[in-house]
Amino acid sequence: MQTSHTPLAAEELALMNAWWRAANYLSVGQIYLLGNPLLKESLSRSHIKPRLLGHWGTTPGLNFIYVHMNRAIRQHDLNMILIAGPGHGGPAVVANTWLEGSYSELYQDISPDEEGMRRLFRQFSFPGGIPSHASPDTPGSIHEGGELGYALLHAYGAVFDNPQLITCCVIGDGEAETGPLATSWHSNKFLNPQTDGAVLPILHLNGYKIANPTILARISHTELECLFVGYGYQPIFVEGDDPEIMHQLMAAAVDAAVAGIFAIQRQAREGGDMTRPRWPMIILRSPKGWTGPKEVDGKRSEGSWRSHQVPFGDMEKPEHVQLLAEWLASYKPAELFDASGWLKPEIAALAPSGKRRMGANPHANGGCLMRDLRLPDFRDYAVPVVTPGSMKAEATRAMGVFLRDVMRQNPDNFRVFGPDETTSNRLGALFEVTNRSWMAEHLADDDHLAPDGRVMEILSEHACQGWLEGYLLTGRHGLFSCYEAFIHIVDSMFNQHAKWLKMCSEIPWRRPIASLNILLTSHVWRQDHNGFSHQDPGFIDHVVNKKADFIRVYLPPDANTLLYVTERCMKSRNLVNVIVAGKQPEWQWLDMEAAINHASAGIGLWEWACNDQPGEPDIVLASAGDVPTLEMLAAIDILHQLVPALKIRYINVVDLMTLQPQEEHPHGLSSDEFDSLFTTDKPIIFAYHGYPWLIHRLTYRRTNTNLHVRGYKEEGTTTTPFDMTVLNTLDRFHLVMDVASRVPKLQAQAAHIKQSMRDKLNQHAQYILEHGEDMPGILEWQWPGLKS
Amino acid sequence: MQTSHTPLAAEELALMNAWWRAANYLSVGQIYLLGNPLLKESLSRSHIKPRLLGHWGTTPGLNFIYVHMNRAIRQHDLNMILIAGPGHGGPAVVANTWLEGSYSELYQDISPDEEGMRRLFRQFSFPGGIPSHASPDTPGSIHEGGELGYALLHAYGAVFDNPQLITCCVIGDGEAETGPLATSWHSNKFLNPQTDGAVLPILHLNGYKIANPTILARISHTELECLFVGYGYQPIFVEGDDPEIMHQLMAAAVDAAVAGIFAIQRQAREGGDMTRPRWPMIILRSPKGWTGPKEVDGKRSEGSWRSHQVPFGDMEKPEHVQLLAEWLASYKPAELFDASGWLKPEIAALAPSGKRRMGANPHANGGCLMRDLRLPDFRDYAVPVVTPGSMKAEATRAMGVFLRDVMRQNPDNFRVFGPDETTSNRLGALFEVTNRSWMAEHLADDDHLAPDGRVMEILSEHACQGWLEGYLLTGRHGLFSCYEAFIHIVDSMFNQHAKWLKMCSEIPWRRPIASLNILLTSHVWRQDHNGFSHQDPGFIDHVVNKKADFIRVYLPPDANTLLYVTERCMKSRNLVNVIVAGKQPEWQWLDMEAAINHASAGIGLWEWACNDQPGEPDIVLASAGDVPTLEMLAAIDILHQLVPALKIRYINVVDLMTLQPQEEHPHGLSSDEFDSLFTTDKPIIFAYHGYPWLIHRLTYRRTNTNLHVRGYKEEGTTTTPFDMTVLNTLDRFHLVMDVASRVPKLQAQAAHIKQSMRDKLNQHAQYILEHGEDMPGILEWQWPGLKS
Repeated sequence: MQTSHTPLAAEELALMNAWWRAANYLSVGQIYLLGNPLLKESLSRSHIKPRLLGHWGTTPGLNFIYVHMNRAIRQHDLNMILIAGPGHGGPAVVANTWLEGSYSELYQDISPDEEGMRRLFRQFSFPGGIPSHASPDTPGSIHEGGELGYALLHAYGAVFDNPQLITCCVIGDGEAETGPLATSWHSNKFLNPQTDGAVLPILHLNGYKIANPTILARISHTELECLFVGYGYQPIFVEGDDPEIMHQLMAAAVDAAVAGIFAIQRQAREGGDMTRPRWPMIILRSPKGWTGPKEVDGKRSEGSWRSHQVPFGDMEKPEHVQLLAEWLASYKPAELFDASGWLKPEIAALAPSGKRRMGANPHANGGCLMRDLRLPDFRDYAVPVVTPGSMKAEATRAMGVFLRDVMRQNPDNFRVFGPDETTSNRLGALFEVTNRSWMAEHLADDDHLAPDGRVMEILSEHACQGWLEGYLLTGRHGLFSCYEAFIHIVDSMFNQHAKWLKMCSEIPWRRPIASLNILLTSHVWRQDHNGFSHQDPGFIDHVVNKKADFIRVYLPPDANTLLYVTERCMKSRNLVNVIVAGKQPEWQWLDMEAAINHASAGIGLWEWACNDQPGEPDIVLASAGDVPTLEMLAAIDILHQLVPALKIRYINVVDLMTLQPQEEHPHGLSSDEFDSLFTTDKPIIFAYHGYPWLIHRLTYRRTNTNLHVRGYKEEGTTTTPFDMTVLNTLDRFHLVMDVASRVPKLQAQAAHIKQSMRDKLNQHAQYILEHGEDMPGILEWQWPGLKS
Repeated sequence: MQTSHTPLAAEELALMNAWWRAANYLSVGQIYLLGNPLLKESLSRSHIKPRLLGHWGTTPGLNFIYVHMNRAIRQHDLNMILIAGPGHGGPAVVANTWLEGSYSELYQDISPDEEGMRRLFRQFSFPGGIPSHASPDTPGSIHEGGELGYALLHAYGAVFDNPQLITCCVIGDGEAETGPLATSWHSNKFLNPQTDGAVLPILHLNGYKIANPTILARISHTELECLFVGYGYQPIFVEGDDPEIMHQLMAAAVDAAVAGIFAIQRQAREGGDMTRPRWPMIILRSPKGWTGPKEVDGKRSEGSWRSHQVPFGDMEKPEHVQLLAEWLASYKPAELFDASGWLKPEIAALAPSGKRRMGANPHANGGCLMRDLRLPDFRDYAVPVVTPGSMKAEATRAMGVFLRDVMRQNPDNFRVFGPDETTSNRLGALFEVTNRSWMAEHLADDDHLAPDGRVMEILSEHACQGWLEGYLLTGRHGLFSCYEAFIHIVDSMFNQHAKWLKMCSEIPWRRPIASLNILLTSHVWRQDHNGFSHQDPGFIDHVVNKKADFIRVYLPPDANTLLYVTERCMKSRNLVNVIVAGKQPEWQWLDMEAAINHASAGIGLWEWACNDQPGEPDIVLASAGDVPTLEMLAAIDILHQLVPALKIRYINVVDLMTLQPQEEHPHGLSSDEFDSLFTTDKPIIFAYHGYPWLIHRLTYRRTNTNLHVRGYKEEGTTTTPFDMTVLNTLDRFHLVMDVASRVPKLQAQAAHIKQSMRDKLNQHAQYILEHGEDMPGILEWQWPGLKS
């Protein structure tokens, strides 16, 4: 398609520039002003905020982009949302959504007039107000410009399965230096032009971070162009500082980009051409702090790193007040707003209407569009457990069959993400109904790759998490399956998402979205091919630091409890659900009915493993996690043989948060419930999947603190499955020794019991060194049932 | 420099191929064989490991690279180390170091003969043996191929200030998809050809991850070339599968790359040309599982994802045993090893000699080369505190002056890393003696950028951490300063480094290296420009899950304690030291002598803030962190005014690990010490910098569990400094209310005290909403001294 180099008629250009000036004016106002919003009075210190907080540098460029996107939306009736990657672009998005009216519709007190403008200015970076980055309270935002790196991943996540949507994604040249962003560009190898929407990336080179130039602003034009051609894009450059020329260049670039997107989509959707297209992108090079003061105190400001935050403070200096007055006046507010503060109608007419306004697009408030998942009955996928411990199954394989049918029934609404481990994690049944998403080259021997694949695999946990977040935030559903140890790669992304959810819960117009479901498998206890570096169960510790209302942690001990938990997570909203479940064949404990009863309570006695009734137990044994449960039950079996008179109570924990007091977590047991399970004074031995201290941290307020926890303590290497538990003293023999040490009535036998356990451990150590596999009888151990 | 396209004479080619076959043979042997290492007997099931663990796919490519690097080392007497990025390339590095002799020198039992070969095979992925990835026990390795993404960062870190060193860095095409790796390529903008060494990146396209193709293997040649030109490299392609042709291509590519590196270094070092060079890199495209079986059970193996791990298992099948026998025989071991298992001398002659062997290069055992830092006397940088709380200072600014002189005295041995925040974090004094490292374009207005800058700033926490790790592992010293919230970006990298340190401590030949020092500033309590998304003090929680012997956490309350702690960290070895310290002007408490006494103990009474003597206190108040200390002392002041008879003991904690029992952490207090400080029963109120639960987790074994902790509980946004503490109930008024609730003898006055505190809080809330800044008297509050 032919596009003009000067597509804007003089009048349109003048109006667009007026909008831009208005947005810039409002941005400066937000950073500096407490009152006198229309400068009706001569500006004085009292009109200016006591503390100046915010970031001017990136703002005019964002404002520039916004007005040009509005033009494209109106011209083509685009369904577009904006992601403002640059960290502190808050003033820009707020200013533009106020100008287009969407802001005042959501916040009636910030009306589209002088008083509203005053409040708009005042609330910015002010106690009780709004932060300086785009955030959940910003209309049209699905992205917090807090921690940098995830803008483009969110943008791609938003358009998967949204064929009509275009996400305009502004990427700051600071953010572009982060690892996650640097690999995000490759998302185009996963974007299907038939069934997905489009992303229009705009790399905004304003040249500086806080005090430093950016890398991409300081490489040659050739390198820059090559880099993005190499990433598979068609870069369109817009470079300069003269507003009039830049408006024409930008309009032409946007025209070309939109035409390019349309052409690609037409070719794929009508022509059936599924070769990977070279999607357009725009590289916008404009001065940092564009239109701000050229100089401050004799030093260059516009176009320099000095305009990154507030270009000048110290407003006790009259010359600074004067500079601010001149700066604000340079936008000629009287030409932009009428005497009541209303935007002049001819300028206001530049805004798209209704839901086409980027601040009102429902995709950016995904809960509005979210459809519930169609879920098959998880009971139909039950593993047939006749008696506890009578059969083995791979828990995640059962889950995979359930997920297959979820996928089948929700063909445009559900995706599974993971770093190349879907099959390895035993979720391969998914490939009976879908493929791996792949738009790059194909070869004959490829396994389940297709452009319309709905399993997203890339060797980047950042990309998996970021895509899924974008997908959820725009109203869809999904699951991220990951190696347990390497989920720490996205610790920080989890933080940001959990914080986003917490803030949204305080904003009435934000509608609930589907929970972020994380399956951790290939966990610390079963690492056949891998060594010490692949062992870390600490993500749970990280998660439980966030607000209790938004996080859940499940450790289902077998397949049927995992199925129940999976369905529960899929139905939940506004949470981060962490599920830890092994993929190896393991003994199964509960039939489906028992699994539902147990997992819905989240914690409970397994009566068939207890012999404490009637009366009181001598010891309370508990476990959370599949391998700890196996070892604890094996220990109970040994104890029952050695000391049949010992009265044992066994408690299994699926929902970790039940351990916390109910005042601290909505799933927490009351004191009475906890005491009636754990007793108020009997010794408790707890075999836990992760770092043992976490159990102490969750239970320190409980009555019974006679608690001894075994778990992972940073020991282990490439060894046999059972040896991993031995190295961390979580194995059945160590657990029996723990019991012998802690039950007063075993005092006489304790030395003997412990010696016999030590003999077993020595035997085992000897055996594996000779044979390289576990001693016969260990992994084959089977729950015999307790006789009395 | 002209280089030949067929640089290898027939004989040299044959010998190099023989070495390669030997390495491949040893790799297959490691994965499969328990015995019969030279195939002297007919191969049977009993010679094969019961559990087959390991990864073949990447190994032959690594072996191929190794032999070619050996040629280059010998030809040019190169000082070169190898980083094997691909996750499970362990067998390759082990095989080659055994062939060159360095392995047997470090592990005498793995001798260079038949018995040694048998042990070499057996130990691999076997209990008590070695893992399947290059790891600390691998000679010549500074990089664990566990979690992927950091190979190239380690490579660059290794060559900074090592002008004679070349790091050959093999990057798998799987790893190349990770975010950290994707941005690592830009490290060339920070490499000074005069004073740094060189990195030779080899992107190894073997086409597949676990079950998926890789992105970079499935884009066009043009895109691939453009991408690396865009990253600033000169890519040299080596593509094919015929070994003879590939040897020639690879030898020519390596010749060209080495010539390119020499030319660049000559131009810079002799010609003084400091324009950023286009460093060479090699793109090696070879079949996955190269030279492995073409087919297994009728399915393609070599060149397919199916050869990613063990190409075939189930060795009960005689045809699989047969296939293995044929595969091993295909390398013609009798041509490679003599009857005693010794490598034939003409092949062995291909190895470089002595320390030029990559398995014996001392740079990969950095402790061998490490020189102690020359440290100025930290006392000389003391802030002059006359009485506690009589002056304000910015703690990190004092530290910056000390660091400046460390930098000055160690001009080739010490660097400071951070994501563009060195000045913002008040360490700007560094720029009096050095600059920011910068090899990209310069502009007139740039601030302290220079090719020989020793402050490394890039907006990637991954890059900062990875470079520093590489720098430390090769025997140098450094510091990483970071926003507290965003240090979680490298949670997983910290894990890997801490695990590396733990493993090294168990390996006699690994020499201690300098500690990894992390300064967390711009912390949770002082976030002027930033909101909720920038608040997370949980890195400490993450760190304390790792082995106690390798981690330290310090929360110095003021400048002089920070100076002491900084020096202590700089002098320490084999640790990760986390220091949390604010950058804002705050009251100073201790003169240098008191600071040394206090911080060297790590915990202690501040007698000038106690009034409990003689006798017992009514309450024990404690704090850790600068802001909690400020609030706690302010609370003590209020209490003293309100209830002068209340006997208060105040304890300040600098070294967080003193709270743990001494059995759990080497810095832990004994029970007696702890009890004598905290009493065995008096109520304790603890104001802590981070998540309050951590204090419970550290102290749950202590006698006195009458402990109430205040800390960050995920509340806050962009607001005033004091309001942040109020939102999290860590402020002085809430602390006073806590005391009133918990001291029995205050029962009569409690309601009155609490009401007056609530009044204060209401007043404050009202004030900041009106004025946008803290109520007068709050930040100006000054410690008056206790009268009695």
